[in-house]
Amino acid sequence: MTDRKEFRDLADPETARDAIASLDLTPDPERVALADARGRVLAERVDADIDVPGFDRASMDGYAVRARDTFGADETDPESLELAGTVHAGEEPDVEVTEGRAVEISTGAVMPPGADSVVMVERTDESEDGNSVAVRTAVAPGDNVMLAGADVAAGERALGPGTRLTAREIGLLSALGVDSVPVRGKPTVGIVSTGDELVRPGEEVDSAAGQIYDVNSYTVAAAVEEAGGEPTLYPHAGDDYDEMERILREAADECDLVLSSGSTSASAVDVIYQVIEERGELLLHGVAVKPGKPMLVGRLANSESAGESAYVGLPGYPVSALTIFRTFVAPAIRRAAEVPEPATATVEARMATEERYGEGRMRLMPVGLTETGPGESGDGDLLAYVVDKGSGATTSLVEADGVVSVPADTAYLAEGESVEVQLFSPDVRPPSVLGVGEDDPALARLLDALERPRYLSVGSRVGLRKLRDGVPDFVVTSGDSASDRQLDASELASYEREWGLVVPSGNPEEIAGLADLVDRDLRFVNRGSDSGLRTTLGETVADLADERGATRHDLVESIDGFELAAKAHESPARNVAAGRADAGLGLRTTAEKLGLGFVSVGTETVRVLANPDRTAKAGVRELDAALDDELDGILADLSGFER
Amino acid sequence: MTDRKEFRDLADPETARDAIASLDLTPDPERVALADARGRVLAERVDADIDVPGFDRASMDGYAVRARDTFGADETDPESLELAGTVHAGEEPDVEVTEGRAVEISTGAVMPPGADSVVMVERTDESEDGNSVAVRTAVAPGDNVMLAGADVAAGERALGPGTRLTAREIGLLSALGVDSVPVRGKPTVGIVSTGDELVRPGEEVDSAAGQIYDVNSYTVAAAVEEAGGEPTLYPHAGDDYDEMERILREAADECDLVLSSGSTSASAVDVIYQVIEERGELLLHGVAVKPGKPMLVGRLANSESAGESAYVGLPGYPVSALTIFRTFVAPAIRRAAEVPEPATATVEARMATEERYGEGRMRLMPVGLTETGPGESGDGDLLAYVVDKGSGATTSLVEADGVVSVPADTAYLAEGESVEVQLFSPDVRPPSVLGVGEDDPALARLLDALERPRYLSVGSRVGLRKLRDGVPDFVVTSGDSASDRQLDASELASYEREWGLVVPSGNPEEIAGLADLVDRDLRFVNRGSDSGLRTTLGETVADLADERGATRHDLVESIDGFELAAKAHESPARNVAAGRADAGLGLRTTAEKLGLGFVSVGTETVRVLANPDRTAKAGVRELDAALDDELDGILADLSGFER
Repeated sequence: MTDRKEFRDLADPETARDAIASLDLTPDPERVALADARGRVLAERVDADIDVPGFDRASMDGYAVRARDTFGADETDPESLELAGTVHAGEEPDVEVTEGRAVEISTGAVMPPGADSVVMVERTDESEDGNSVAVRTAVAPGDNVMLAGADVAAGERALGPGTRLTAREIGLLSALGVDSVPVRGKPTVGIVSTGDELVRPGEEVDSAAGQIYDVNSYTVAAAVEEAGGEPTLYPHAGDDYDEMERILREAADECDLVLSSGSTSASAVDVIYQVIEERGELLLHGVAVKPGKPMLVGRLANSESAGESAYVGLPGYPVSALTIFRTFVAPAIRRAAEVPEPATATVEARMATEERYGEGRMRLMPVGLTETGPGESGDGDLLAYVVDKGSGATTSLVEADGVVSVPADTAYLAEGESVEVQLFSPDVRPPSVLGVGEDDPALARLLDALERPRYLSVGSRVGLRKLRDGVPDFVVTSGDSASDRQLDASELASYEREWGLVVPSGNPEEIAGLADLVDRDLRFVNRGSDSGLRTTLGETVADLADERGATRHDLVESIDGFELAAKAHESPARNVAAGRADAGLGLRTTAEKLGLGFVSVGTETVRVLANPDRTAKAGVRELDAALDDELDGILADLSGFER
Repeated sequence: MTDRKEFRDLADPETARDAIASLDLTPDPERVALADARGRVLAERVDADIDVPGFDRASMDGYAVRARDTFGADETDPESLELAGTVHAGEEPDVEVTEGRAVEISTGAVMPPGADSVVMVERTDESEDGNSVAVRTAVAPGDNVMLAGADVAAGERALGPGTRLTAREIGLLSALGVDSVPVRGKPTVGIVSTGDELVRPGEEVDSAAGQIYDVNSYTVAAAVEEAGGEPTLYPHAGDDYDEMERILREAADECDLVLSSGSTSASAVDVIYQVIEERGELLLHGVAVKPGKPMLVGRLANSESAGESAYVGLPGYPVSALTIFRTFVAPAIRRAAEVPEPATATVEARMATEERYGEGRMRLMPVGLTETGPGESGDGDLLAYVVDKGSGATTSLVEADGVVSVPADTAYLAEGESVEVQLFSPDVRPPSVLGVGEDDPALARLLDALERPRYLSVGSRVGLRKLRDGVPDFVVTSGDSASDRQLDASELASYEREWGLVVPSGNPEEIAGLADLVDRDLRFVNRGSDSGLRTTLGETVADLADERGATRHDLVESIDGFELAAKAHESPARNVAAGRADAGLGLRTTAEKLGLGFVSVGTETVRVLANPDRTAKAGVRELDAALDDELDGILADLSGFER
């Protein structure tokens, strides 16, 4: 462990950006079929090869005539012309228009020789025998005719290089008869995932052996696509030098850019470091940015040509990896693909609370967003709240919407200060409604009825604190947490849920209630101290202590596992199901769902409270309507729930 | 032609919208691999099946210890612990931490039994013999450890139904080991192109027989993809009932929605009308909207099941088809796909000039956009100018950026009035710079050096008029057009171009100059009357008339084809190349490019003039820089051009 890379000489972020900009990711142009050209960028100018239309074309249904033959015709004094034939669209005319004659013509048909104009059908009357037509208006030469080349003339510049191809450009190319176009290539990006402990999603993971699912490979691959690149996933490389070298070489030979990502372990990073130094060139290692310190930038020699591929090593933690990708790598891929960043990729927001810094390096701070205003359309401000669960948490990925880049010399961001949020993806949209608080299965079901909700299960206590900070749109509490204090919040709904001890199926230990936990040698699993349900348990234990003339502390000390806090409302029950505990704090509905036994202790009240400043917000009104319409059905469907 | 559908009872636009909304386009959900899930919308809620992490996990490199063994340790008084072994990431621990012992541990590794915390490596010193480690800090239980399930607990709600999957959601799903997800299906849209005259791009088009390329099929297919649908192109149906019926039935059996589109001919529309009435149900035909009157909405019975598919008949002209699709059909596809319209699909703009209406039906007015302000970032207003080339023009597709919906009762839009522009595609961006005026090959090359220019070859005269209206950023004139009047414009550059008569290679008619056109029986092709080059020609003819003591009119009358105006600068020359004329007005460079002969007549000045209100605009500055940097090279490369 002594030769670990310590990243002591950290590059500043601008240097890192310059180093990546100095790499050549630009792919060769390619030719694609028109049907596949949408979203691509034209590599060369396209000039018209043909006239559009390719012939003088009738632009009305009617009669092709010589304009001079209609001179003086009007409604009261029509001019009668002899009918010489018919031309439909897609036919070569087999008739000429000579003096005093007309030819019936369809929109889009070729003008017959001799004719210089079309009288629209609405201003004519064909004779009953079909031999002549009375023209009730005069026309001028060129009327209702589109001349050959009038739309596009052969030789005209049609589309310039760099044009992004959308439906309309594809329309113009179709009109020119073009069925394939030269476009900029998409930079190919090889993703090499490192670390002995990683398993691809879909495979079995052996937790006892410390295996975890590989998060970065698919995440970064999706982000590469969003940036206009073409990702390739390479097989996992372990921490072995030879294997790593083989895979990095293969990726370098096949891709414009190689990204390594995955492991947080120093040994895997060491091996990569060594391969890059030996098989290529390391431009920098370590950047003065949090998160993202262990970033590597370099080049990898191709094994079969004199060329080189660009290389960037991303940090191992998923949020760090995506943040560094978004900030440093995606712009380079977009540049190489010549696809500009969508305007939606960045939004302005106000800081929901103040933030202090003091690390002396740039901070890429993950933030979540919520709208303060009534509607979807941005008539309210966006609030940015800091998501700080530690970079190891994958849930930060979906609880944050993007990052705010805080310069190294910024010590303080004030509440309400305006910040620019770089969204994780251009398609990221702030949640329609933001809730925080107690983890509750009825509420979780209700969320499914909402458009784009975000709910942070932080527990009742933390939820109430965040509501006082003005961040969420609504909070869900259980137990007496909410009634304890004077709360400036409007109650949207409340209901009761039955709680107690979840025990193995059949209750083999014959647990009768809380007293058994105190008096017997049973392994218990509790909820976290922010949970309202735990508060309710604590109060019930205090009541039991009163009955016995003991202190609450005494009883708690006698419960093996009272301090063993599990995260989600199902977690204690799942510990029981796995045989790791004899009883867990939980709800009747959870015990039934997991096929476990249940010892009822009581009921507690769950309250849904709205932020008083947000009651006009569309998402809150949607929540309110869903509570009115759906809650009774949900409660009826879950055991132990009622109004 | 007497039983043509006249669309006399036009539905109002709201009725049309309701009729389309009443159709069921919603596809069945499907399951896709995680690697293909980006951009899709989750069909069901996804709960966590597993704890993340699945084990108590070291979140630092260091030493796993019992916290109580580090009590009191600090820099001056380290605690020495016996080294009992090592655990790497991805390994099952084979060692226990008992009192007074420590185990070396990597980030991400499983905590060995007995240990409750990790001392980070930076606060330790391993002994030289590797048998013990000195710990220079005290830790508390849980320090530098992420407990099993602390990130996501099994049973927690991970993602709700309706979630759009971007990189970050794919990250969370990866962490949960999910490798495929249930997503909303994409509505399948069959595109049936009608009309005997249509030819697919890439095939040969027979202009003499009135064939044209099919523009709508690929355009609408691309627009369907942009709206979140999955397009299928069906083979061309002619105007034959049986063939049309067969193809429409096939499309109805295979797709959620069938769109017909292509022909402008009444007979093709008649056949479709008949098929829908006989094989399905027509909900409405004809909508009071311009363009788009001949729109059809209905249902088509499936031949193999009791089901029905939705049907919409689009108008035949490309701009009309795309406009109607954008306004009426795309919203229905988005709803069925549950993909919201991107915020970028609509922009606010000011009318560049006033517009009057008087048709009593809703107008979907194609407009182009240009920014008045200095930058890209919207610090200027967007100006909307009406593109009114007639709906038959495919070039309107790329000269307009979107449509403004003008209600039937609006008679007047004032200059400067604010309008909402529905862009043709969410990816459409206003041009970086908008130029108008003379068609010139040097200028066309220069445009290739600019980022996202739009240039409308309307001729010098129209260009100058548009500049006075304040629409374009710059105008290009030739001849004396610009110097004729007092122009409030700043000249960015000027250069000379050599013009004359383009003749067949070898000049078989031995044409020596303009006089031959007057005196001999030669077929000539001129440019359009808005062209500066034609003005220059006219002045030269006037000089010749002076010499001869004749009037200009006399001489013009003697030139066969003086009034035969061709659109683009190459068009007269191409007429010569095709044997349709003996001489054409043109440039030396054009004659050389096309391998033709050239009889020089003179030179004329081309001027590039900037709109004085836009000189600070980024696109104008880019143009100015390109003129400085690139123009000399371009002129040197083209015959007959010089400063």
